[in-house]
Formats: sequence, C-alpha cells, structure tokens
Amino acid sequence: MEKTIPVVTKSHSYEIRIVTQGLANLLGEIQRVWSPRKIALITDENVGPLYAAKVQQQLSKGGFAVQLITIPAGEASKSWEFLEKIIQQLAAGHFSRHDGVLALGGGVVGDLAGLAASIYLRGIAFIQVPTSLLAQVDSSVGGKTAIDLPTGKNLVGTFYQPDLVLIDPAVLTTLKRRSLVEGYGEVVKCAALVGGNFWQLTGNIENYQAIRQAAAELIEASVRFKAQVVAADETESHQRQLLNFGHTLGHAVEQAAAGRLFHGEAVAIGLYQLSRLFERRHLTAAKTTAQIAVRLKAVGLPLSDPQLGTPAFYQALQHDKKISNQQLTLIYLKQIGQPDFYRRPLNQIITWLQQELLTTGK
Amino acid sequence: MEKTIPVVTKSHSYEIRIVTQGLANLLGEIQRVWSPRKIALITDENVGPLYAAKVQQQLSKGGFAVQLITIPAGEASKSWEFLEKIIQQLAAGHFSRHDGVLALGGGVVGDLAGLAASIYLRGIAFIQVPTSLLAQVDSSVGGKTAIDLPTGKNLVGTFYQPDLVLIDPAVLTTLKRRSLVEGYGEVVKCAALVGGNFWQLTGNIENYQAIRQAAAELIEASVRFKAQVVAADETESHQRQLLNFGHTLGHAVEQAAAGRLFHGEAVAIGLYQLSRLFERRHLTAAKTTAQIAVRLKAVGLPLSDPQLGTPAFYQALQHDKKISNQQLTLIYLKQIGQPDFYRRPLNQIITWLQQELLTTGK
Repeated sequence: MEKTIPVVTKSHSYEIRIVTQGLANLLGEIQRVWSPRKIALITDENVGPLYAAKVQQQLSKGGFAVQLITIPAGEASKSWEFLEKIIQQLAAGHFSRHDGVLALGGGVVGDLAGLAASIYLRGIAFIQVPTSLLAQVDSSVGGKTAIDLPTGKNLVGTFYQPDLVLIDPAVLTTLKRRSLVEGYGEVVKCAALVGGNFWQLTGNIENYQAIRQAAAELIEASVRFKAQVVAADETESHQRQLLNFGHTLGHAVEQAAAGRLFHGEAVAIGLYQLSRLFERRHLTAAKTTAQIAVRLKAVGLPLSDPQLGTPAFYQALQHDKKISNQQLTLIYLKQIGQPDFYRRPLNQIITWLQQELLTTGK
Repeated sequence: MEKTIPVVTKSHSYEIRIVTQGLANLLGEIQRVWSPRKIALITDENVGPLYAAKVQQQLSKGGFAVQLITIPAGEASKSWEFLEKIIQQLAAGHFSRHDGVLALGGGVVGDLAGLAASIYLRGIAFIQVPTSLLAQVDSSVGGKTAIDLPTGKNLVGTFYQPDLVLIDPAVLTTLKRRSLVEGYGEVVKCAALVGGNFWQLTGNIENYQAIRQAAAELIEASVRFKAQVVAADETESHQRQLLNFGHTLGHAVEQAAAGRLFHGEAVAIGLYQLSRLFERRHLTAAKTTAQIAVRLKAVGLPLSDPQLGTPAFYQALQHDKKISNQQLTLIYLKQIGQPDFYRRPLNQIITWLQQELLTTGK
C-alpha cells in the first residue's frame, strides 16, 4: 500500500505518506523533500534498538550526516529537562537553519522533537516517522508539538508543521498489544465523528488482532479526516476543537489516574461516558452509546475507571485548557457522524456530572 | 505625535502605534485590540519601578486583571531558567488561551516575554510596549522572540507576531545615555540601507542630545522600513537578511567582548568595519564609510574594539547562525541605500578579514 495525503495549512503545506515497508525505503522518502544535510535522529530507548541503526545506515548512504539522540521512553521525557538537552545537542553539533530533525517514535518522541525543531534557531526542518498507532493516526498529524508541566499535559508547545510525515503500518508488528489497542481508541473517536463507511469499518474490528490486519485502512481514514480538519483550522480556533470529542473527560480521568491509564484508554472512557450522559439527556440519538461501547469493548478498551468522579478528577477538569471565561466547550454527537459543540459554564457541567455519576454509577 | 504603521505578515496582521505620551493612555490603546482578560505584565527591575504601577492601575480600571512578573534587568535573563519561571507563573495563575502577555521593557523583556507567550498553550495573545530606543526601532518590530544559550545569543526562539506594538517616544527621557546611543546604532544601520531622506535625517544628528529631540522621526522611519521588510519575508528566508547589515562582525565582536559592549555598540563597529573592508575592495562606493563614521562618532558610538581579530572573535564568527554549508552571507552597501548580498565560503571570508585587519589595523 502506498497513499499520499496532502496537508495544506496557512503556515506550510506538505504530504503525509502511508507506505507499507516505507521504513525500509526511508532514504528515498526523505530525498523527496530534503537535500543532503545534517539530521538529528531523535528516538527513544524502546524504538531506537529496533530501527535506529538501519535508519542511520540508509541516511548515511544518501549523504546525510546523522546525529542520534535517544531519550528515555515514556511521558516523563516530555519535560523542560529533555527539551533543553535536545537543544543543547543541536547547538553542540552546530546544527544550522538548513539542517533537520527527524522524529522516529511514538507521540512522546514526536511532540518533544517537534517542539525542539520549532524553537531551535526559530525553527529548522522537521520530519515525523511515527511508530505507534496512536502517533500514526493522531499525534503526528496536525503540527501540534508539546511538553508537559507539573500542572498539566501539553501546556507548553507550538503549532509547527513538518516537511513530511511517513507512516509505515508494518512497524505495528513490533508494537505491544496495549499500545496498539490504545491507538485504536483515537481511531474510534475519528470514525464516530466521520460516520459512514469509516464507522462501518470499525464495526468489523471484533478483536485486537483485527486492528493490525486493517491498520492501513484505519490509518488512512483517520489521517484523511484529521488532515482535512487541520487544513480548515490549523490553530484550533473552532472546527479543530471537534477532535477533542471524548478528551475533556478523558484528560481528567487520565490525570487523576496519574499514569495508570494510557492516553487512548482514557479517551475511550471519555467517549463512552460523555456519549452516555448526552444520550440520557436526549441530545445524542438513542443507541449511539451502545454502538460506541461495542467497538471499544471488542478490543478490550475500558469504558470506565474508579477515578471517574473523584475529587482528583474534578480538580483536573477545572484546569482544562479549553476553559475560557469559566465556560467549557464539550463536543458531543447528535448522532454518529454529526458532532456538535455544547458550551456551558464550568460549574453547571460539573454539577451535571456529579448528579449523573451518582445516579447512574459509572 | 500619533502614527499608525500596519504590519501585514502571512501569520498575523497588526498595527505598530507610535504615540507620544502613549503610555499614559495605555488602557485606550489596549482596548483597541483586547477585550477584558487576565494580563501577565512582564517587566524588569529597571523599568518596573518607573512605569509598572501606573500601567497596572490603568489596566485594572479597564477591567483587566493584572499579574506582575518582574525579571532581573540584563541579558542574563534571556535564559531557560527565566523562560521556565515565567511559564510556571502563567500556569500557576491559570492563564487560558484567551488571556494575554504584555511586555513592558527593552529588548530582553520583549524577546523573553514574546517567547513565553508564543509557547504557553501553543501561543496566547501578546502586546509589546518597548521602552528602550533599541527595542523601539528594532527588536519589538518583526516578531522575533528569543533566549540565549551558553554557545550563542538568540539560538532558541520563535517567529511570533504581537497584536499591537505601542511605542511611546516620551519614555526615552528616562533612558540612560549609553542605552539611547546604542539604539541609535540600529537607526544608522536602517538609514544606510534605506538612503534618501532617512539618511539625510541622520546627517543632522550631531550629538547624543539630538537623538532624543528627533526620536519620534527616527523611530518612525526605522519602523516603517523594518515593517516593510518583515512583511515581505517574515521568517528571514531572503530579503529580511538585509537587516543583518553590520551584524555578522558585530555579533562576533560582541560575543568576544563578553558583555563589555552593548549590542548597538557592537553593531556600530560591525557597520563601520565591514563597510571599510568592502570599500577597500571597491565593492562599496568611495567615501561611504566616511559618511557612516561621521554619524557614529557624532554620538560617541565606537568604530573599533580591541577584540576585533582576536581568536575569540574568529571563534564566534565560525558559529554564526547564518552559516550554511560552510558558506557565510554578508550584507554590504554598493552605496548608501543600495544593499546587496555577498555569499562566500566561510574560510575565504576569514582569510580576507585576517589579511585586512593585519594590513590596515582596526
């Protein structure tokens, strides 16, 4: 399979390429967009041992000078400390405005490397090669970069579009089951927003092995949708907020769970719980939530968590970065494929959640 | 005096307002572009005591909630440490995407506050109120933000346009002589690039007091020129490099002098020395350098420095961030008002400099 999806934003236009076994021809893919230069190959301690040596070999053969930068795997690397370390290494290696940064890894590597590329010398060239399903369908698409603060995730970052995103579905064979499944949480979110054939497609995923078999199709559908939303609203002033479906409750439960839940698992909980609440209010069509639940349960994604409705959960909700003037905007589905905005005072939403979670359980 | 200069860039359009006594009506100026919101008022230990209380009073009266953040004065504050501190305070104050950052101070405050505004929550609203001549004619215009690294100045930053730049020439009455004069170094640079009436105008500045008297005119001419260059090339891919006239040698001597020279003084040295070398090669018209020297000397700006041509000077030159593929681009004047590019291998330029500085002295 080989698909090219153009992304046209105000700041920069480029292509997302989905190429099975694309990593084996990474040199050719990079030569489509970059002349020979120095490349900082940023990866982590899980992905590096699997792929970095081969990538380095290929690129060196093509006349690129590769400097390998390996960070510890895991969310804790999305910090000031590692941002500063990467920048120091770029400076020590005398990287110029005409050199580049290549992110080889999951969302943590992509977010951190992208932020480094966007602020070093006020921005140098950047390429994403996402290796987790979550990064392939979500975080590598749309130019969001970030690190976390102690007070919350992704509070520091930039909008910075790469020169290329190369997605190789074949690398998913080395991805652990739980990581594969969490990425599918974001796929279900996209499919619910889009509806139609994409929603049908997720209906056929009856166990986690089926995710891998249908990966190329699922990635393509997710990326096409996301690329279109990002093109319409690069900096999330309106339409791009639709992608936050399930994320407000998801982020809060993720933060309350303090690392126990993966992001995609928290999103699954957010999708289901939010849909359930809106369906009880008849704002979401009957049986929508059941359809969502079937898809999430099929692959073993959670629908609830003990942290839902705890003080830590409400604490995190109150610091959601989408709050403005004490108003919160939730995204809900009128029905599958028909998302809409629901903007209310934060207090009102919290009262509603408290009542519902008490009345109906989790 | 009240002048409005529109700045139209690809990313964002806004106005630069030059208003004598504008600081006394800052509230009115801000209300032109911002609805009531939280404002982080970032200033330094020199400027804060002079103006922060009055600004805070005005803004509070207009329904803005002001959080004052004061940093130590001086280049050392353009660091990771203070960037992180500012961001921490924005997060602790629960600043949202709909709040704003206001920089009240010279170039250090503007560069640092602008970078913080550009990466906090992937960018929140930003206004510049520059209070030094250097910031008024140069650093506040064009959207460059930055911090320094141990290996060089401004190596980390973003291009991030504000919603408004308010320049009040009246605040120059509280500026120390040496700071006023260094700002004039950048004015002479602009005038030499533009030529014509602007160049004539600088011919009338026969002592440092005259800078203050003609400040409004000098600022307007500099800002109009810079705004036009930035509009044509926001991210310095080509034309904006013209603004680097005098800066390559200037940065190198500034870095070699390790804090002893102010930036505008180093630029003055760079302008004069570079022009002298190109005039000796007959690439710059005869007597151009003498005209530049007259203007710089009139206000007491230096034309040379003991650090010129030292190993530390060449060391700094070799790490200039404009070097690509071991080629360096110098900006020179064919004559006043006619700048051009001179791109050569770095080694060749260094050999040339070494010969000239040995042969003709400094």
